[in-house]
Amino acid sequence: MKVNSKSANKNLGFATQSAEEAQSGKGTVIHESEVRDVSLAPSGERKIAWAWRNMPLLHSIKEDFKKTKPFKGMNITLSIHMEAKTACLCRTLAAGGATMYAAGCNPLSTQDDVAAALSVGCKEDPAMKVFAWHGSTPEEYDRHLTKALESGPNIIIDDGGDLINIMHTKLKHLIPNVYGGCEETTTGIMRLFSMAADKTLKFPMVAVNNAQCKYLFDNRYGTGQSVWDGINRTTNLVVAGKNVVVAGYGWCGKGIAMRAKGYGARVIVTEIDPVKALEALMDGFDVMPMDDAVEVGDLFITVTGCMGVITNKHFDKMKDGAIMCNAGHFNVEVDVEWLDNNTESAEHKPNIMGYTLKNGKKVFVLAEGRLVNLASGDGHPVEIMDMSFAIQALSAEYVAENHKKLEPGVIAVPKEIDQDVAFKKLAACDLSIDELTPDQAKYLLSWDIDVDA
Amino acid sequence: MKVNSKSANKNLGFATQSAEEAQSGKGTVIHESEVRDVSLAPSGERKIAWAWRNMPLLHSIKEDFKKTKPFKGMNITLSIHMEAKTACLCRTLAAGGATMYAAGCNPLSTQDDVAAALSVGCKEDPAMKVFAWHGSTPEEYDRHLTKALESGPNIIIDDGGDLINIMHTKLKHLIPNVYGGCEETTTGIMRLFSMAADKTLKFPMVAVNNAQCKYLFDNRYGTGQSVWDGINRTTNLVVAGKNVVVAGYGWCGKGIAMRAKGYGARVIVTEIDPVKALEALMDGFDVMPMDDAVEVGDLFITVTGCMGVITNKHFDKMKDGAIMCNAGHFNVEVDVEWLDNNTESAEHKPNIMGYTLKNGKKVFVLAEGRLVNLASGDGHPVEIMDMSFAIQALSAEYVAENHKKLEPGVIAVPKEIDQDVAFKKLAACDLSIDELTPDQAKYLLSWDIDVDA
Amino acid sequence: MKVNSKSANKNLGFATQSAEEAQSGKGTVIHESEVRDVSLAPSGERKIAWAWRNMPLLHSIKEDFKKTKPFKGMNITLSIHMEAKTACLCRTLAAGGATMYAAGCNPLSTQDDVAAALSVGCKEDPAMKVFAWHGSTPEEYDRHLTKALESGPNIIIDDGGDLINIMHTKLKHLIPNVYGGCEETTTGIMRLFSMAADKTLKFPMVAVNNAQCKYLFDNRYGTGQSVWDGINRTTNLVVAGKNVVVAGYGWCGKGIAMRAKGYGARVIVTEIDPVKALEALMDGFDVMPMDDAVEVGDLFITVTGCMGVITNKHFDKMKDGAIMCNAGHFNVEVDVEWLDNNTESAEHKPNIMGYTLKNGKKVFVLAEGRLVNLASGDGHPVEIMDMSFAIQALSAEYVAENHKKLEPGVIAVPKEIDQDVAFKKLAACDLSIDELTPDQAKYLLSWDIDVDA
Amino acid sequence: MKVNSKSANKNLGFATQSAEEAQSGKGTVIHESEVRDVSLAPSGERKIAWAWRNMPLLHSIKEDFKKTKPFKGMNITLSIHMEAKTACLCRTLAAGGATMYAAGCNPLSTQDDVAAALSVGCKEDPAMKVFAWHGSTPEEYDRHLTKALESGPNIIIDDGGDLINIMHTKLKHLIPNVYGGCEETTTGIMRLFSMAADKTLKFPMVAVNNAQCKYLFDNRYGTGQSVWDGINRTTNLVVAGKNVVVAGYGWCGKGIAMRAKGYGARVIVTEIDPVKALEALMDGFDVMPMDDAVEVGDLFITVTGCMGVITNKHFDKMKDGAIMCNAGHFNVEVDVEWLDNNTESAEHKPNIMGYTLKNGKKVFVLAEGRLVNLASGDGHPVEIMDMSFAIQALSAEYVAENHKKLEPGVIAVPKEIDQDVAFKKLAACDLSIDELTPDQAKYLLSWDIDVDA
Repeated sequence: MKVNSKSANKNLGFATQSAEEAQSGKGTVIHESEVRDVSLAPSGERKIAWAWRNMPLLHSIKEDFKKTKPFKGMNITLSIHMEAKTACLCRTLAAGGATMYAAGCNPLSTQDDVAAALSVGCKEDPAMKVFAWHGSTPEEYDRHLTKALESGPNIIIDDGGDLINIMHTKLKHLIPNVYGGCEETTTGIMRLFSMAADKTLKFPMVAVNNAQCKYLFDNRYGTGQSVWDGINRTTNLVVAGKNVVVAGYGWCGKGIAMRAKGYGARVIVTEIDPVKALEALMDGFDVMPMDDAVEVGDLFITVTGCMGVITNKHFDKMKDGAIMCNAGHFNVEVDVEWLDNNTESAEHKPNIMGYTLKNGKKVFVLAEGRLVNLASGDGHPVEIMDMSFAIQALSAEYVAENHKKLEPGVIAVPKEIDQDVAFKKLAACDLSIDELTPDQAKYLLSWDIDVDA
Repeated sequence: MKVNSKSANKNLGFATQSAEEAQSGKGTVIHESEVRDVSLAPSGERKIAWAWRNMPLLHSIKEDFKKTKPFKGMNITLSIHMEAKTACLCRTLAAGGATMYAAGCNPLSTQDDVAAALSVGCKEDPAMKVFAWHGSTPEEYDRHLTKALESGPNIIIDDGGDLINIMHTKLKHLIPNVYGGCEETTTGIMRLFSMAADKTLKFPMVAVNNAQCKYLFDNRYGTGQSVWDGINRTTNLVVAGKNVVVAGYGWCGKGIAMRAKGYGARVIVTEIDPVKALEALMDGFDVMPMDDAVEVGDLFITVTGCMGVITNKHFDKMKDGAIMCNAGHFNVEVDVEWLDNNTESAEHKPNIMGYTLKNGKKVFVLAEGRLVNLASGDGHPVEIMDMSFAIQALSAEYVAENHKKLEPGVIAVPKEIDQDVAFKKLAACDLSIDELTPDQAKYLLSWDIDVDA
Repeated sequence: MKVNSKSANKNLGFATQSAEEAQSGKGTVIHESEVRDVSLAPSGERKIAWAWRNMPLLHSIKEDFKKTKPFKGMNITLSIHMEAKTACLCRTLAAGGATMYAAGCNPLSTQDDVAAALSVGCKEDPAMKVFAWHGSTPEEYDRHLTKALESGPNIIIDDGGDLINIMHTKLKHLIPNVYGGCEETTTGIMRLFSMAADKTLKFPMVAVNNAQCKYLFDNRYGTGQSVWDGINRTTNLVVAGKNVVVAGYGWCGKGIAMRAKGYGARVIVTEIDPVKALEALMDGFDVMPMDDAVEVGDLFITVTGCMGVITNKHFDKMKDGAIMCNAGHFNVEVDVEWLDNNTESAEHKPNIMGYTLKNGKKVFVLAEGRLVNLASGDGHPVEIMDMSFAIQALSAEYVAENHKKLEPGVIAVPKEIDQDVAFKKLAACDLSIDELTPDQAKYLLSWDIDVDA
Repeated sequence: MKVNSKSANKNLGFATQSAEEAQSGKGTVIHESEVRDVSLAPSGERKIAWAWRNMPLLHSIKEDFKKTKPFKGMNITLSIHMEAKTACLCRTLAAGGATMYAAGCNPLSTQDDVAAALSVGCKEDPAMKVFAWHGSTPEEYDRHLTKALESGPNIIIDDGGDLINIMHTKLKHLIPNVYGGCEETTTGIMRLFSMAADKTLKFPMVAVNNAQCKYLFDNRYGTGQSVWDGINRTTNLVVAGKNVVVAGYGWCGKGIAMRAKGYGARVIVTEIDPVKALEALMDGFDVMPMDDAVEVGDLFITVTGCMGVITNKHFDKMKDGAIMCNAGHFNVEVDVEWLDNNTESAEHKPNIMGYTLKNGKKVFVLAEGRLVNLASGDGHPVEIMDMSFAIQALSAEYVAENHKKLEPGVIAVPKEIDQDVAFKKLAACDLSIDELTPDQAKYLLSWDIDVDA
């Protein structure tokens, strides 16, 4: 089924810029797109159109970018789950003048028709270089990211930290081209902070995840809904009355647990942070160590950002039929590798792998332990990603405009961008809110008011 | 793609009973199965296996039926959504000795691989006659039901009333064969009561829907979850913050509204019954007439069991982008026919049809206005249908055993069956509950206790 | 503090009807009011005024009754929790022409100021005979009910069955006067059905509790809120994170559990009915026998309508500090008597009695195990009782108008009254709902519609 | 009823320290306690005992303090709502060696029996100087705080900022004695930041409110529960089905709205912060400006920390019967003063004042617009305050131990204290949680892991 994407793209007649044209930096190479099948483009284009209908913030930003062209003459390399909403971000950045090099960020989350559509372009939007296909091997995945980066980006938009990792290891010679970048995820930012602490991070990276309009919405309401979409469409099992174990009570875990409760589950939370554990308790959930939770759980969802959350010391204690899945960025939270190597396995339904343990019980893992909302679904709801990607687009613009002033390190999203996105979103929902009166503003700044006088 | 199922089945080598063998009744005809493609059977078999893992009640009933053979020598014609869980019911009944004739009950809810698997059989379970394919035309649908009935059933298992309708109109000559039957849905039972009031219902029909273990679970928790599964996987839009209009606050509507709230929606309920309207109000929802709701709703879900809930007088008042879908049994709640005939339409994504109104706004209908949980999903969660189908199987056994004593009309599920299923389900969940002590039982029956003495 | 209410009333100058004037029946006696302290009337009058502001249904019924005088020349004896909302019902009935004899129905739920106000009357509303004081002994309580009944009522309005019990035992000679009555509670109706089965019930009793506008609202939303009001104001302890055990998952139990969840508790339900147990499970609650629940519960609320729910076999297994309370009609659900007789006790705060068990642990009982919402609070919210008492008032009118046609036994509230109250309530909330169109009505009655044609 | 507390205290025989003995600072004066009625002490002592039973964290801290005596030789002046839980904090600090001077922080939240008990002491705990009574006039309130401060505190524990205000205005000469202090509330910290920005804050103040174990629990779950306790016990009105307007969606507002939803209300949020407004929207609430909310709200709860939230421009637009109350620190959020001065008013029930507007409609204000949870209730649940006061006690210890190193300004609660309190609370709930393994800790710090290798 694999297509030689180079010739396919040629057939579609779009010209490839030479490395020299695209980029003044030394050592850059412009590769042809690598997608599964360009003939899937019309299907991808329809998906993109549906998403675009429901992304009013990117709409207005794209209109602005068309006029202001903040990325004129710049290369942007982006690695985000390659599906319809990401395509809308790519086209918004392109409308701002960027030459785009787009890759996926997870082997199972790429939708081949969307990748095809982006690589082909449409009447409104230009073709761009795309390096992504569904079910890529580790080698292919690595090659895709590397090719996307060998263009010599000025701005890097990363999701989980793989682009940054490659830039700082294999492609150090291209670092001088880089103005800076943006990182989408909690996981990626934890890695960036490690690098910054090491002084190994060589350019400024905006912590997009840490914007209020990102983590309060995407991580909580986005993950909360999309994880259940992925689980429900895959298993067709009832949630009500089940013991659902949520590992990790950060914003993502809070969202997943909240929706589990909304579905009638009894929720058990495992945590390493005592404050988060108490929040879970007060939100009406059970709290216990994973060692205990494995004995009572029917469905496990890991979302800690850490490795080794459910491992071989746990599997034997589980109920027959227990189901595990992951909503953390990397597929290291459930030790699927151990199961693959030490038990007999069989696919029971698409995305449901059953493992027969030595004790005779069967346990199941959804979507190979990868992000269940993306690998078994379509990822976050469109409107949520509209907010996150609005932050992305405006943060990229901020890097483009301010790169001369920014130091290497992890940079916060400017509060003005956060507020701007929030106000845009309210307007898109046709809502207005109160404003402080001058008297109120003065009151809030004063400390010597005699309140009883 | 259509297959001549007769020859296909022949290839698989199963013999067809003659009408005479199957049935002593006059005028019966045994038809060959009509399914799309028998080669899909392995996929269907895997779906059935996953469902079967999660249907402990049918498990235990099937084991009983194997020994007791309550349907020995009987024909059963069944028309229920032809997907994996229904297949498990069919095989349970067959294990009880029945010769099964199975049809779907909705043109969009049939899964062709499951139909194929049933028609082919497997090591454990015999082949049976199946008359169903996805996307059947009205003529085909009618033909399928008719063929399934021309076998001359002793017991009829219906879902919505179509089998009963055909029996009492086109196939009156076969009525003498019929011992009785079971009806699965609220809608079907409303029709049966109309017939009983008319004295046109000619045999006893058990109102399976009205068993507590059916309507309290299937209609509420089943519909509540599966409708949102269907909507979310189809639209990929966020539910939180949306105005969701639920038309009808019966058990199904209650379930849908409850889960909408669990997803963070603001819910508006429309009703014709003032008591249900007040319940909705006290459950924290807005209540208004549909004429007002259409102006504020983002997403509409009809589940009234009635026709003409959202019609051409409403479409023009809707917001641009409003989405409608239906979870009531028939596709008459949203007037899709009017939209099809009077506006320009285009499919935006699979199962999302967009209609451009004269005022320039676009509105969307999911799954042609048919049951969104079945036409855009896999129907109710497995464990829920395990309960409903346990009631079905035991009610069918009740008809088989008692048909000589039963009068034509609508019959309640015996309370013993309801309680039995509930206790079986508790046991399957490994739960136990309290029992009345003799003192307590006596107390509850007494009226002259001096409670303050 | 006790007042000789007879002289007190005399001081206030209202005349007492002679038995002959009030009632033609043989053997009737008209007693003077017995209230704690008539000087509390102004405080009671203010409470009544606040309730009255928030009872629009009784308002409109009272206006009607003033014109139609359905109870003209009749005696009504009423026994309901003697607080402000009940006072409004009494005055509504009086406005309809009834001579009222009012008693409480629970020794701890009487509010002395309200009783005083009713006994005194005000400009708008006449004085009536009241027999109730807070903390009455069993003997006093019995005397109060008996005195209220010795007037020879034509209509009896009962709450729990005590009036009916006395009438059928001690005051049989007055039964010929009785046209019929109304019963407010689940508990009372269970007792009435026992009597009806025995043929010992001698007049028609309307099962007010079984009206939809009663049990769906009063039992669920009323009890749900008022029980937590009673518990929270008494204990000042946090609910979130607590293990709350709700014994009984009828409408009252459902309401209490729903609000517990709303407060962030983890809820455990105990039941004897397997269907209700499954409902609790699917609503997200734990289900277990009381023997297990006592080991994990922090707070226990009994609402079964049965005796002996938590008894001496349970106390020793409880956590130190466990708190028990009751929301069922009678104080027999928690075996407080055993605790009183077998452990050392001390009041820790008003309405919190602590018991030191032999194992050294302390357990607490709120409000002596009596209705915690009434004995430690003000009972159901006003607007909820407005609905319940609207049913009461209209049911009493129904008895008055139809008593010649009614047979002894338990009578359902006529559906018209139920619907009428629901529509009145919607109007009071300024809400309107949809009406069936003629086409829809026809559709719902038909069974031979070809839905796909 | 007022008592000359000086003589009353003398009667109880406790000696008063001279200013010199208590404090080396110049200009200090030790005043006698001012409480309403020392004879109320036994009632207060019982309330304190109930609270103390339910404050395990303060228990363990008090045991520690008894040994370590961190406040030996120090004066502490404290101004917190003078009720049972605060009394437990006072006694914990006293056990650490402090000489305590305690005042209330709100004229309506003082419980006179508790103040009496503290001023008298008990077998376990010494008498202390208390300056608080319920319903103090502004002059009395000011005098009480001033007297408590004239002792010349080394540590100040403030709630809202009034102590700090007086110290920096009237009592500047005592500032040199002050090592530092702690502030409990959001409001107070806003004032402290204003002072710090002005450089007018002359000593270090720990922002207790900003500890996670404070604001995540006290503000959210504490306020969420106690506000509804206050409202429900005062009004006896139903919450379900009401339009509840919550002004301000900070942690307190989130808690109040969450519980309103738990009670079945439809919630409307007003905000000035667009991000918080969007959170409210996604949590399922309506969002609108107050100008619009006043037209639909049934019940208004202000919790903004700002003045003039509901003012005379709003009252006329309200529904007849609308009820307002406040849960923000100061009574300036609802403009009660305007209502008092411009309309006719009458108390309808204790803590319910009705105002008749010029348009003839009546609106109601609970508890004079002061903190409804304290003025109409008993404040936050005990266990919640146990956490907050554990932070207070340990932060005060931190100031005592580190005052030589601390600079004037607003100081964060050390993370170790926050974690320590969280772990103590988990232990008190008998819960344990997971710990990071060394491999996990290493993983979280690494950035170059090849996750797909």
